[in-house]
Amino acid sequence: MEEIVCKGFKAGGVASGLKKNGNKDLGILYSEKPAVGAGVFTKNLIQASSVGYDRECLNNGECQAIIVNSGNANCCTGERGMQDTIAMAKSAASGLGIEESLVLVASTGVIGEPLPVEKIETAVPVLAGGLTSKGFTDFAESIMTTDTVPKIVSKQGELDGKTYTVTGVAKGAGMIQPNMATMLCFVCTDIGVSQDVLKKALAAGVDRSFNRITIDGDTSTNDMVVVMANGLSGAEVSKSIHKNIFQEVLDDVLISLAKMVVKDGEGATKLVEIKVKGAGSDKDAYIIADTVANSNLVKTAFFGEDANWGRIIGAVGRAGVPVSPNTIDIYFNDIIMVKNSMGCGDAAEAEATKVLKESEFAVTIDLNMGTGETTVFTCDFSLDYVRINADYRS
Amino acid sequence: MEEIVCKGFKAGGVASGLKKNGNKDLGILYSEKPAVGAGVFTKNLIQASSVGYDRECLNNGECQAIIVNSGNANCCTGERGMQDTIAMAKSAASGLGIEESLVLVASTGVIGEPLPVEKIETAVPVLAGGLTSKGFTDFAESIMTTDTVPKIVSKQGELDGKTYTVTGVAKGAGMIQPNMATMLCFVCTDIGVSQDVLKKALAAGVDRSFNRITIDGDTSTNDMVVVMANGLSGAEVSKSIHKNIFQEVLDDVLISLAKMVVKDGEGATKLVEIKVKGAGSDKDAYIIADTVANSNLVKTAFFGEDANWGRIIGAVGRAGVPVSPNTIDIYFNDIIMVKNSMGCGDAAEAEATKVLKESEFAVTIDLNMGTGETTVFTCDFSLDYVRINADYRS
Repeated sequence: MEEIVCKGFKAGGVASGLKKNGNKDLGILYSEKPAVGAGVFTKNLIQASSVGYDRECLNNGECQAIIVNSGNANCCTGERGMQDTIAMAKSAASGLGIEESLVLVASTGVIGEPLPVEKIETAVPVLAGGLTSKGFTDFAESIMTTDTVPKIVSKQGELDGKTYTVTGVAKGAGMIQPNMATMLCFVCTDIGVSQDVLKKALAAGVDRSFNRITIDGDTSTNDMVVVMANGLSGAEVSKSIHKNIFQEVLDDVLISLAKMVVKDGEGATKLVEIKVKGAGSDKDAYIIADTVANSNLVKTAFFGEDANWGRIIGAVGRAGVPVSPNTIDIYFNDIIMVKNSMGCGDAAEAEATKVLKESEFAVTIDLNMGTGETTVFTCDFSLDYVRINADYRS
Repeated sequence: MEEIVCKGFKAGGVASGLKKNGNKDLGILYSEKPAVGAGVFTKNLIQASSVGYDRECLNNGECQAIIVNSGNANCCTGERGMQDTIAMAKSAASGLGIEESLVLVASTGVIGEPLPVEKIETAVPVLAGGLTSKGFTDFAESIMTTDTVPKIVSKQGELDGKTYTVTGVAKGAGMIQPNMATMLCFVCTDIGVSQDVLKKALAAGVDRSFNRITIDGDTSTNDMVVVMANGLSGAEVSKSIHKNIFQEVLDDVLISLAKMVVKDGEGATKLVEIKVKGAGSDKDAYIIADTVANSNLVKTAFFGEDANWGRIIGAVGRAGVPVSPNTIDIYFNDIIMVKNSMGCGDAAEAEATKVLKESEFAVTIDLNMGTGETTVFTCDFSLDYVRINADYRS
């Protein structure tokens, strides 16, 4: 992690024994004083008990800590599941010496297995006692499942001469799909802001970041993005212009994390930006971009570094929104590969194939119909995706 | 192929040189006399020229032959594409000595490359001259792309003491997804039937077969199911009861072919029936079944023979239709694995894992909400799917 400190926040992560391999699996993010909190949660109708629990907690407006376990989603675990979520909150509150109602809970991992909460209760005192302002990497590692790298981003902004910091930590890897995007993401900031403004800023930021990424079209039962703002930098969002300045920094953190999540998607070897423009509306553009970004045929062609634009145009045509069949242009970065729905020949294909060998590139689809446009991020679909997901529980 | 002969039909297939590997790539299915024809076509908005061409032809009500090439989809090939489609029809008409307007055309293969139609024109005279009533296997082989086996089904029925035959040939493998399902399928029958009745029977049959299967969620630009009925058996659909009898045999052929297509899906090692019942409506049941059947996480778990029901219930929850989160039961064949949205324990899991080792099994999801139900067929998602699709054009 960069040496940027978000004032008044501490974090840490330990191995409590939930993960069979002995990796870190329990983390806490803590603010020295109660913070304004806001969250965005999964739209999956099957939800882990932590999701409903946190929604309730955030109705208070304030929160001071979040305890997260990986290795077990504590989802589809019935009444015991909710008791275990409450036990996690109690345990953290007691270890930190704060009100139980100020503790949020998150879980990620396998669905349907009872959570061995006693392992968590045993580990919390040591974890809570060891939190530091430099513990974000440990925290980021403790929330990983099939992620290969911890994901932390810090950005700073200035309001009326006062510097504030926004630090975000995320985990992703599989089951990443818009609405709501993703995985777990915890953001802390030392800016001062009202809950109402924070909620709106988070919703807008998530829409521009985690709701624009896809790895495999699945959406988890446990997804959440939570932000805590403790005001300790002295910078305060009090004017309308401040909102925009804060939004920009928050978006920057969320978009950076979202890209890191796609790039570290299960088995992913390439980060691909799918831009759709010239659509009938922004919504149509999004539906088309999402269809292309989720097409297994398109994604396996990216993996094979094959400029197989026929699969892209095939996905455009089946997206379910109006397109003009004979006016579609497709670019790989700035190489035009398809003009008016026809290939531009072998020379263009050779150039496009070079683009596909890069680890990051953009595919632009211009429908030449209207002014609707959007961008989503996806990854390629590799042999390792199947290997990882065929073996996940074993 | 079974030794059932569909009266008055001949077929054949040859290698014209479209496929680099020298496999058969050009076939003709022919009726000795003009037949009543009906077709169901892809709903993809990007369509091969053959699709529009055949729609027009079938407006005549009659057709007598269909010429099919594999190895090149002749899609996104502009005006030249339509000229090449017409050239294929002309060439077949001339070789067979019939009216050009009675010839349907189909293509399957790579999108966006010009069709080397001269290869087809060169091969047609030999192909047309060599058609026989035993040429269905050659025909079935000539339409294959990544299929590993030719797919032919013949069934017989009786109307007022007269036996009639329905023979269908299909190709599938990738880009298989409902609406409309699939790939190419050509059905011939020696029953006598009006075009109106034939159209309705085909639409109903496709809805119960090819619109219930999925391999990878993609839908092709070239998909079609065409049926030709020449009446040469003497059996004639003239009463309402006849319609039902014919529908049953037609459905039997289409459903058998649809299952063969899924079973031979790209890289597939398992055929899985996804049954959803107790839904709010049949439509809701279908949306849920389709979401589960297309979930990469579910399909990779099938490949890994992992009874990971958490991924199934996760897919149910994100399908976008109402479900009651705590009343879901899930069965693997007749083993109950989940009751009221909670796992039934290690013993049930051990039994379910045995089911998953079979090459064909059913997953039943009971939502316990209403009376809506449906069944779809899917396959597992294997390493070979990625291998096949990463390398397809090379």
